Amino acid sequence: MSTNQSWGGRFAEGPREAVAAYTDSQTYDRALYAQDIRGSQAHARMLGRQGVITPEEAEQIVNGLDAVKQEIESGAFVWKPALEDVHMNIEARLTEIIGDVGKKLHTGRSRNDQVGLTFRLFVADRLTAWQQRAAHLCATLVSCADGHQDDILPGCTHMQPAQPVSLAHHLLAYAWMFRRDCMRLDDVLRRVRISPLGAAALAGTTYPLDPQSVADEVGFDGIYGNSMDAVSDRDFVLEALFAASCIMAHLSRLCEELIIWANPAFGFVQLSDGYSTGSSIMPQKKNPDVAELMRGKTGRVYGALMGMLTIMKGLPMTYNRDLQEDKEGFLDADRTVDASLMLMAGMLEELTFRTDRMRAACARGFLNATELADYLVGKGLPFREAHHVTGHAVALAEKQGKGLEDLSLAELQQLDARITDDVYAVLDYAAAVRRRETPAGTGPRSVARQIEQLRTWLQERA
Amino acid sequence: MSTNQSWGGRFAEGPREAVAAYTDSQTYDRALYAQDIRGSQAHARMLGRQGVITPEEAEQIVNGLDAVKQEIESGAFVWKPALEDVHMNIEARLTEIIGDVGKKLHTGRSRNDQVGLTFRLFVADRLTAWQQRAAHLCATLVSCADGHQDDILPGCTHMQPAQPVSLAHHLLAYAWMFRRDCMRLDDVLRRVRISPLGAAALAGTTYPLDPQSVADEVGFDGIYGNSMDAVSDRDFVLEALFAASCIMAHLSRLCEELIIWANPAFGFVQLSDGYSTGSSIMPQKKNPDVAELMRGKTGRVYGALMGMLTIMKGLPMTYNRDLQEDKEGFLDADRTVDASLMLMAGMLEELTFRTDRMRAACARGFLNATELADYLVGKGLPFREAHHVTGHAVALAEKQGKGLEDLSLAELQQLDARITDDVYAVLDYAAAVRRRETPAGTGPRSVARQIEQLRTWLQERA
Amino acid sequence: MSTNQSWGGRFAEGPREAVAAYTDSQTYDRALYAQDIRGSQAHARMLGRQGVITPEEAEQIVNGLDAVKQEIESGAFVWKPALEDVHMNIEARLTEIIGDVGKKLHTGRSRNDQVGLTFRLFVADRLTAWQQRAAHLCATLVSCADGHQDDILPGCTHMQPAQPVSLAHHLLAYAWMFRRDCMRLDDVLRRVRISPLGAAALAGTTYPLDPQSVADEVGFDGIYGNSMDAVSDRDFVLEALFAASCIMAHLSRLCEELIIWANPAFGFVQLSDGYSTGSSIMPQKKNPDVAELMRGKTGRVYGALMGMLTIMKGLPMTYNRDLQEDKEGFLDADRTVDASLMLMAGMLEELTFRTDRMRAACARGFLNATELADYLVGKGLPFREAHHVTGHAVALAEKQGKGLEDLSLAELQQLDARITDDVYAVLDYAAAVRRRETPAGTGPRSVARQIEQLRTWLQERA
Amino acid sequence: MSTNQSWGGRFAEGPREAVAAYTDSQTYDRALYAQDIRGSQAHARMLGRQGVITPEEAEQIVNGLDAVKQEIESGAFVWKPALEDVHMNIEARLTEIIGDVGKKLHTGRSRNDQVGLTFRLFVADRLTAWQQRAAHLCATLVSCADGHQDDILPGCTHMQPAQPVSLAHHLLAYAWMFRRDCMRLDDVLRRVRISPLGAAALAGTTYPLDPQSVADEVGFDGIYGNSMDAVSDRDFVLEALFAASCIMAHLSRLCEELIIWANPAFGFVQLSDGYSTGSSIMPQKKNPDVAELMRGKTGRVYGALMGMLTIMKGLPMTYNRDLQEDKEGFLDADRTVDASLMLMAGMLEELTFRTDRMRAACARGFLNATELADYLVGKGLPFREAHHVTGHAVALAEKQGKGLEDLSLAELQQLDARITDDVYAVLDYAAAVRRRETPAGTGPRSVARQIEQLRTWLQERA
Repeated sequence: MSTNQSWGGRFAEGPREAVAAYTDSQTYDRALYAQDIRGSQAHARMLGRQGVITPEEAEQIVNGLDAVKQEIESGAFVWKPALEDVHMNIEARLTEIIGDVGKKLHTGRSRNDQVGLTFRLFVADRLTAWQQRAAHLCATLVSCADGHQDDILPGCTHMQPAQPVSLAHHLLAYAWMFRRDCMRLDDVLRRVRISPLGAAALAGTTYPLDPQSVADEVGFDGIYGNSMDAVSDRDFVLEALFAASCIMAHLSRLCEELIIWANPAFGFVQLSDGYSTGSSIMPQKKNPDVAELMRGKTGRVYGALMGMLTIMKGLPMTYNRDLQEDKEGFLDADRTVDASLMLMAGMLEELTFRTDRMRAACARGFLNATELADYLVGKGLPFREAHHVTGHAVALAEKQGKGLEDLSLAELQQLDARITDDVYAVLDYAAAVRRRETPAGTGPRSVARQIEQLRTWLQERA
Repeated sequence: MSTNQSWGGRFAEGPREAVAAYTDSQTYDRALYAQDIRGSQAHARMLGRQGVITPEEAEQIVNGLDAVKQEIESGAFVWKPALEDVHMNIEARLTEIIGDVGKKLHTGRSRNDQVGLTFRLFVADRLTAWQQRAAHLCATLVSCADGHQDDILPGCTHMQPAQPVSLAHHLLAYAWMFRRDCMRLDDVLRRVRISPLGAAALAGTTYPLDPQSVADEVGFDGIYGNSMDAVSDRDFVLEALFAASCIMAHLSRLCEELIIWANPAFGFVQLSDGYSTGSSIMPQKKNPDVAELMRGKTGRVYGALMGMLTIMKGLPMTYNRDLQEDKEGFLDADRTVDASLMLMAGMLEELTFRTDRMRAACARGFLNATELADYLVGKGLPFREAHHVTGHAVALAEKQGKGLEDLSLAELQQLDARITDDVYAVLDYAAAVRRRETPAGTGPRSVARQIEQLRTWLQERA
Repeated sequence: MSTNQSWGGRFAEGPREAVAAYTDSQTYDRALYAQDIRGSQAHARMLGRQGVITPEEAEQIVNGLDAVKQEIESGAFVWKPALEDVHMNIEARLTEIIGDVGKKLHTGRSRNDQVGLTFRLFVADRLTAWQQRAAHLCATLVSCADGHQDDILPGCTHMQPAQPVSLAHHLLAYAWMFRRDCMRLDDVLRRVRISPLGAAALAGTTYPLDPQSVADEVGFDGIYGNSMDAVSDRDFVLEALFAASCIMAHLSRLCEELIIWANPAFGFVQLSDGYSTGSSIMPQKKNPDVAELMRGKTGRVYGALMGMLTIMKGLPMTYNRDLQEDKEGFLDADRTVDASLMLMAGMLEELTFRTDRMRAACARGFLNATELADYLVGKGLPFREAHHVTGHAVALAEKQGKGLEDLSLAELQQLDARITDDVYAVLDYAAAVRRRETPAGTGPRSVARQIEQLRTWLQERA
Repeated sequence: MSTNQSWGGRFAEGPREAVAAYTDSQTYDRALYAQDIRGSQAHARMLGRQGVITPEEAEQIVNGLDAVKQEIESGAFVWKPALEDVHMNIEARLTEIIGDVGKKLHTGRSRNDQVGLTFRLFVADRLTAWQQRAAHLCATLVSCADGHQDDILPGCTHMQPAQPVSLAHHLLAYAWMFRRDCMRLDDVLRRVRISPLGAAALAGTTYPLDPQSVADEVGFDGIYGNSMDAVSDRDFVLEALFAASCIMAHLSRLCEELIIWANPAFGFVQLSDGYSTGSSIMPQKKNPDVAELMRGKTGRVYGALMGMLTIMKGLPMTYNRDLQEDKEGFLDADRTVDASLMLMAGMLEELTFRTDRMRAACARGFLNATELADYLVGKGLPFREAHHVTGHAVALAEKQGKGLEDLSLAELQQLDARITDDVYAVLDYAAAVRRRETPAGTGPRSVARQIEQLRTWLQERA
C-alpha cells in the first residue's frame, strides 16, 4: 500500500505506474513553488491570528516554508513523483523539516482552494511581467518612430498603395496596440487577484478563518463570494489566455509586415544578423526566422485558449480533475508571450529602416489620387463626383505609365475644367502627409502628439 | 459599365455575379442600419459645426437619414445587392430623397472608418443588451436560491459526493458567474466605445474635422490615437466574442447539471412542459432539449471566436477585406447569447426543484466524512492523521452498506479511542451545512450575505 | 394544447414562442429536403418489400413524396415553424396529400436515424460537388501553368529569394494540393456513405427491416454496425469540416501570394476588373477583395470545425439535442468552400501574369548562390565548405551592390582557386531552373511530367 | 563569430542568446533522432547507388550513423543547443566520428526536405502505434461486452431513459468508434507515407538523385509530385492532429459516461483503486480522476489542431520558419493519445459493472413506452396515433407513480379498446431488448454478430 498519497487511507492498492505518470503534475507545476509557499505562509499566519494554531506553530511553519524555498532555489530539493504535485511535495518536505506541526498547515484548507490561490498568484505575477514587456515594446516602437515623422512610405489598404503615411505613424499604430494590451491586462488582473482560499474543498470550512486577511497579505483585491464558484472558476485562465492571444495576434501582424518588408521587392527593412538566420543549403539567405517563428507561435497560443475553452464546456460543479489541465497550456503560452514581446523589442532596436526605398516606393500606385479628389471637392464638386473624375485621371496616367503628377495641365483640364496650376502642389506626396493633421492622422504634428501621449502614459505606468 | 458602385469610375466592367454574391454584405449588415444612421447623423452635424458643409446642408442630411430610417423600419426600403452593403444602400437612398447634397455626407470619411464606427455602435448596443440579460439571469438565480438555504443536496467534486451544500448555495455559484460576466462586459465596453471616425481610409483627412465631438454625441468614451490602428483594429470584436464564449461556457455548465439532474437516477429537477420537448418515436420522453441545445450552441460561439482570431493572424496593415468577416460570426453569436441568457432565466423560473430527492441523495456517498475528520482534529489529531482514521471508518461503513452515522460508538472508538457520543451530532448532514459560515461558505448566514450582496449589486446596476 | 408537434400527446402546454424559435431548425434544414425525400422513398419501398406496409401503400407514399418535392421546388410549399424541422414539414404535407397512409412512413424509423441518413446524403452530395470544384481548380492551375515552363521567378523560402523556379512549377504546387484535397474527400466519403437507418431511436427496431437494401438504393456503401453509434456518430461531419478547413488553408495560401504579387513592389500579377473592387474614397484603388475575403473566410470554416469538435466533447450516449447544431456550421462552410473553389478558378482564368516583372525580380537576392556552391562541390569541396565559400562570395557581391554573376573571375578565384571561367554559365538563372530535372523538380521536363500526371488523373476522375 | 551554425559563412555575428533559445528546437525534436538517422541512411545509400558519392563513402556514413544512434540510445550523446536541431546535432557528431566524408551526407539535400522526411517517418511510426492502442481498446471493449448480452440498462437519448439496451450493446457502440479511428488512420497514413526527399530547399536539385528508391527503402508509398509543395505541405500533420482529436472526442464521451455512472445516484460502475484517486480533505472520496483528466486533455489535443490550422492560414510559398511549430503540438498530442488509449483499456479491464443496479434502473422512466406504441401499431393504429395513445398511458402511470406494466388492463383499455392481455409480455424490459434483432440492433443475436464482426476485423489487423 502506498502511504505517500495524502488520501491513502481508504485504498487497497496504489495507482498503477502509468496512471501515476498520467496524473502527475509536479513535473510542470513545480514552476509555481514560490507562489505556493507565499500562499501557504499567508494561510499559516492567518491560522495563527485566528487561534486555529498557536502563533508559535504559525511561525514554525512560516520559517519551515522559507527553508523549503531555499532548498528549491539552491537545487537541493528532491522532487518526488509519488507526491503528485508541487503542493504535496512542499508540504511533505515541510513536515520532514519541522515535524508534525507541518501537518497543521493544511487545516481549513483543501487542495482545491490551495491550487486555486497558488495558480492565481502565479498568473498574476506573469501577467504583470507581460505588461512590463508590452510597455517596453511600446516604448521601443515610440523610440523607433521618433525622428521618422517626415519619412514617407506607401500606406496600404488591401495591401495596395492607398495614401502616403509617415514611417513614424505606421510604427505608432503598433505602439497603440500594445498599449491596449497593457490596459486589457489591467482589467484581467482585477479578476485574477481574487482569492479562493477559505472555500476549502467546495463548501467552506468549519474553522473560524479570515480569508480576507490572507487576500490582503498576498496583495489581492478581494475574495470569492461563493465557495463552489471559487474552486471551479477558471475564467481567470481563460482571460489570461485570451489576452495572450490578442498580444500574439498583434505581434503576428507586425511580423508579417517585417517579413514582407525584408523581401528585396520591398527592401524597406534590413534585419540585424542577430535576428536572422541562414540556410544550410543556400549561402546567400538571411532569413527573418524570429519573425516567422513568432507568427507561427501565434497558433500555439490560440490553441491553448481553445483547449481551455473546450475543458470548461459542460463541466459540472465543482472541482473536476479536468481543471488540472489549466496549467500546461498557460505555462507554454507564458513562455511564448514573454519571449516574443522581448524579442520583438530587440529585433526592432537593431532593425535598419531603408527610408530611401520607402520614399521611392511612393511613386508607385497613385498614392496622391485622394488628394486630387479632395482638390476637386475644394473646387465645388460633390465628393462622389470628384472620386469619379479622379478615377478617369488614374486610368489615363496608368495607360501612359505615369504618375498623376506627370499629367499635363491640359490633360487634367480635359477631365475637369476647374483644375488649375495649383494642383501640382497638392499632388506632392510629402505634402499629402503634412496636410493630415486631424487627431490620429499621419501629419507630423499629430504624430508628435501621439508620441507625447504614449510617453506620458509610459511614464505614468513606470 | 456598372455605375452603381461607388468606386466605379476606373473599371472597364463590373464584377461578375458570383463575385458580387461572394463580396455582398448587405444581406446581413443591414442589421446595423440604425447604428449606421446614428453615426452618419453625428458626422453630418459635426461637418456642419466645422463649416465643412453648411448648417442647412447638415440639417437636410440629418432629416433625410431620419426618413431613410423610417422607410427601413416600415419595410418600405428596397435593399439593392448591387450597392453591396448597408452603408451604400442608405447613402444612395438618402441622395434619392434629398438630392445631391446627400453626396456631401461622405466628406472626410471613408467606408473604413464609417464601418468601424457603425459596427462599434452595434456591438456596444448588443453588449449592453447582454448585460441586462445576464443581470436578469443573475436575479433569477438569486430568486430561485432564496428560500432554499436549508434544503441540502450532495455537493460534488469529481462528480462524486463530497460534502452537503444547500441548494441555495449551489444556485448562487452560478449567480456569481453571471455577475462576473456582466462586469467583464463593462471592461470590454470601455474598449468598444472608442470612435475610429476621422481616420478616413487610413491616414486621417485634410478636412478640419472634430472627431471627439462625434464620439461625444454617440456616447463614446474617446477616439483612437492613431488612424491606421483605428481602421484595422478588431480587438473589440475579439473581446466581445470572448465575453460571449465565457457566458456560453457558464451556461453550458448549468445546462449539464440540469440535464443530469433531470435524469430519473437523480430526479433533482422537473422541467416545465414549456421547456421540454418530446420524441417522435418514444411517447414517454420529456427531453431537456433547450438545455442540450444551449450546451451545443456553446460550440458555435467558441467557433466564432476562433474564426475571428484566425482572421487577425498575420494580417498586415491596415484595412483588409478579410475584416468584413467580422460581422457574420458576431451576429450569429449575438443571437445565441441573447436568446440563451433569456431562455435560461425562463427555464429556471419554471423549474421544479425536488428537494425531497436531493435530501434523500445525501445518504449516499459519506458526505459527512469531512465532519468526522474535523471532529478528530478537534480532539487533537493532526489533520493528515484524522483524514487517515476517517478513511478507515468509511471503508468499514461501506463494507457494511451503511452510512458513517450508522456505525456504533464501539466501532468508531476502535478506530480512535478519543471518539465520544457527541460525534453523532457532528455527523448530521444539515448540521454540516450550518457549520460552514466562513465567508463564501454554504452556511445559511453566509448564503444570506451572498443574496444581499448580489441584490445590492443588481440594484446598483438597475 | 398544441397538436402540431409529433410528440404532443403527453404535454399539458406547448413550448413557448421563444423556445420554439430557439429549437426550430426548419429555417435552415429545409436545404436538405431533397435528401430527406430520397431517404424516405427508399425507406418506404423497403417497408413495402418487407411486408411491413403493402406495396400499394409504399407506392402511394413514394408518389406522394414526389408531389411534395415538386411543391417545394415550385415554391408552393408552405413551411410551418410549428412543425420544427424539414422532416416533420414534409411528412405532415405528405399526409395532407395522401391521407392517413402517410403516417405509416415513419414505421420502424425515428427522427434520430432519419436525420442521420438525410444529413449523410446531403453531406455526400456536397462533398462530391466540392470534389468537382477542386478538380476544376486543379485543371485551371494546370492550364495556367502550361506554357510557363521557361518563365522564371524567384522561388522563396522564408519569403526571401532562394532559387529561381518556373512560374509553371510554382502554380503546379497548388494543383497538387487541390488534387490531395480531392483524394482526401474520397476517403471521407467512404465514411459518410454509411447508412444509420434501422437504428430507430437508438436500439434498433422490432420491425423486420432490411437496412442494407435502403443503403444500396441510396448509393451508400454499407450500414452501421451498432445502432447506438449510428444515431450519435458525427465523425462524418467532423471529417467534412476538416476537409473543408484543409481546402480553405490551401486557398488562403494562394490568396496570400496573389495579394502580395498584386502589390506594385512585386507587380507579378494583374487582377481582372471582374475580380477586383475599388475604394469609396481612393479613386486609384484596384483591390484584390475576392482573395482577401477568401483568406478571411478561412477563419469561419476553421471556426465551424472547432465548434463541432466542442459539441462532441464529453457528449454521453446517444442522440442529444446538441447534435442539431451540426447543420448550420456545415451549411455555412459548404457555401464558403463551394464558392471559394469556383471563384479561385475564375480569378486565375482572368489573371494576367507579368512574366517580365518576374524575370526582372530574379536579379535581386542572389538566387544563383546554390549554383555556385554546387559548382564548388563539383570541383571537389565537401558541401559544407562550398556553402561557406559561397557565403563569402555573396558578402562580397552585396558590398558592391552586384549579383554573383557580376563578380570578376579574379575576385571569385581569390575566394577559391578552383573556380574557372565555366562558372558563369552555371550562374545563369534560367539554366539553374533547367538543371533541376530530378522528379518533382522545377526543370521543364519535370514540369511537363507533372502536367501529364495531373491531366491523366483529371481524365480518370472525369 | 559563431562557426557552429551550418549557415555561418555570411554573418558578422551570431544570433543572440535569447534568439537562440527562441529558435532552438533540439530540446524537443531530438525525439525524432531514430527517424532522422533512418532517413539519412537511406539517403546515403541512394547517393552511393547513384554514384554521387562512392559506395565506400556511403557505407562509412551508414555505419557512422549507427554509431551515433548507439550513443544517443546509451545516453552518451551530448546535445548542443548551438547546433539548433536534431539534424545538425547528428550530422556534426557523424563528422566528428567519420571525418570529412560525413559532410557529404547533406549532398543533394536541404534541411527543408530532410526535416520533412524525418517528421513524416516519425508521424507514421506514432500513428501506427495509435492504431495498435486503438485496436487493443476495441478488443478490450469487445471482451467487456461479451457475456453482457442479457444485462439490460436504460438506453438514453437526451440523457433521458429511452429504451432498454444491453450493456454489451452499449459498450460495443464505443468499440465501433475506435475501429473507425483505426481505419481513418489507415487513410491518413497513406498521405503521411509520401517522401519529400529530392525537393532539396524548394526547387529540386541538380544531382542525379533517385528519390523513389529512398521512399521504397523507408517503406513509404511514393514521392511528392512537386518540390515546392513537398517542402511546405503540412497536411499530414493536420490530418494526424485531426485523427487525434477524433480519438479524444470518442474517449471523452466514454469518460463522461463512466464519470456519471460512478456517481452513486447511478452506481452502474465501480472503478478499481488503481484508476481512482482520493481527496486530501475528504477521506471518503474515490474519484474517477483518470477519466476526468482524459476528458480534460481532449481540450489540449483540439488546441494542437487549432494551432496548426492557424499556422497554415495564409502562409506563402514555400518553407517558412512558422512550420517549425508543427512539432511541439504533435509531440504533446502524441503523448496524450498514446497514454489515453492505453489507460482507457486498463481502466475498463479493472472496472466492475454493477449489472444489478443497471437492471433496477430500468424501472424508472417508462422505457417500455415504445413497446406499447409498437403493440398498438400491430393492432392496426397508424404509428403517429399509437404514439399519441401511449403518451396518455404514460401520463396516467406517472400520475399514479407506477410503471406502464403496473396499469390494469381496464385502465389500458380505456385508452384504447384494442389492448388485450398479451400487452404485458410486450411490456417486459428484457423482452424489448430481445425483440430488436435488426442489423445493428440491441438484440442478443445482433450483438453476437457485432462481436464476431469486430473479432474478425481485429484478427485481420493483427
